[in-house]
Amino acid sequence: MQLQKAIQNRRAVNFFDPEKDVPENLLKQVVETASLTPSSFNLQPWNLIEIRAQAEKSKIRELAWDQPKVSEAPIILVILADRSAWQEKHPVFEKNFHELTQAGYMNQEQRQWLLGACENLYGKNEESRQAFACKNAGFFAMSLMLTAKDFGLDTHPMDGFDHEAVKQYLNIPEEYWIPLLLAVGYFREDKELLPPKWRKSYEEIKVSFK
Amino acid sequence: MQLQKAIQNRRAVNFFDPEKDVPENLLKQVVETASLTPSSFNLQPWNLIEIRAQAEKSKIRELAWDQPKVSEAPIILVILADRSAWQEKHPVFEKNFHELTQAGYMNQEQRQWLLGACENLYGKNEESRQAFACKNAGFFAMSLMLTAKDFGLDTHPMDGFDHEAVKQYLNIPEEYWIPLLLAVGYFREDKELLPPKWRKSYEEIKVSFK
Repeated sequence: MQLQKAIQNRRAVNFFDPEKDVPENLLKQVVETASLTPSSFNLQPWNLIEIRAQAEKSKIRELAWDQPKVSEAPIILVILADRSAWQEKHPVFEKNFHELTQAGYMNQEQRQWLLGACENLYGKNEESRQAFACKNAGFFAMSLMLTAKDFGLDTHPMDGFDHEAVKQYLNIPEEYWIPLLLAVGYFREDKELLPPKWRKSYEEIKVSFK
Repeated sequence: MQLQKAIQNRRAVNFFDPEKDVPENLLKQVVETASLTPSSFNLQPWNLIEIRAQAEKSKIRELAWDQPKVSEAPIILVILADRSAWQEKHPVFEKNFHELTQAGYMNQEQRQWLLGACENLYGKNEESRQAFACKNAGFFAMSLMLTAKDFGLDTHPMDGFDHEAVKQYLNIPEEYWIPLLLAVGYFREDKELLPPKWRKSYEEIKVSFK
């Protein structure tokens, strides 16, 4: 599918066909394509929990304002933003440094520089840790939604859930934030979509304060 | 361009051709295509400042670790994440509520419900305000990078800058966070790109804590 068409055709659909499953291999292709997303120093501070079991979806539906799509979509992805992926000894930080030196992007002497830069940019306070994690996980989730569309799937990004209760139910460690739940499946063809929502114009997006 | 090709071909390029300008109309097309990005309650908490003047780019380069691409790319977009767009009386909140009721997405009686939901999800503390702004601005920035590629442009998302100094220099109000600077232009053809960086596999992205 053409990129512009994917952007235009992607809609947050409210009705998923509960009879149409998404094979594991298709989800894998979507996730691995979306994984080409860029990130801060390539740290890829994103993970996901895949929820398929009806009992788990029903429990999460309870924690997500009882939205029917949570239990109707074949898959709920709990998108995770890792606020600690820039720290020394984090497996991803260490693997990333190893891979980047192997590939000629960095050399061993830059290790202290990189650690210092990460500490300075992401470690100074809670707001910079949170920004690091959520911005990059936002990149990844957007790529996921567009790639899913390209593979014929539909999605719905959700904010309406009890963040702490979902975290507790899934035993998610403190360092993660859940920027969204993403329902994934196929649009239920007997339902109708409302027209696309309004968007800000170029002139409304562009600002200057000088 | 096919979506998968855009995802595969998008690279954070370090060298921009300073001789090749990006016409205003092209940037507008890119931004308006990317504006189809979804957001929390359609609040679109993103803005951008467009920097083209050489003197301004040079000043921002000073505040951005003296990275040559900051002054070589024809455009630097300062991407802004608006931490207050969910609040009553914010022009975007008010316009959004008006538009959504006009389009049949909501009715007047849901105003208090929507305000309460936003307060509950985004207003409880600093980390939820920051997550709201940076997640959604991350969606938008990812769409921008892919759309730019589709229109033949190259980009580079940058974290390496002094957040407070850039904010001060551009007189950016407190409610905004700058999740990234985005260099936009054309790759300088006499330079070479290193091979793409490693990415986490599906198995590394997928986690479970139960």
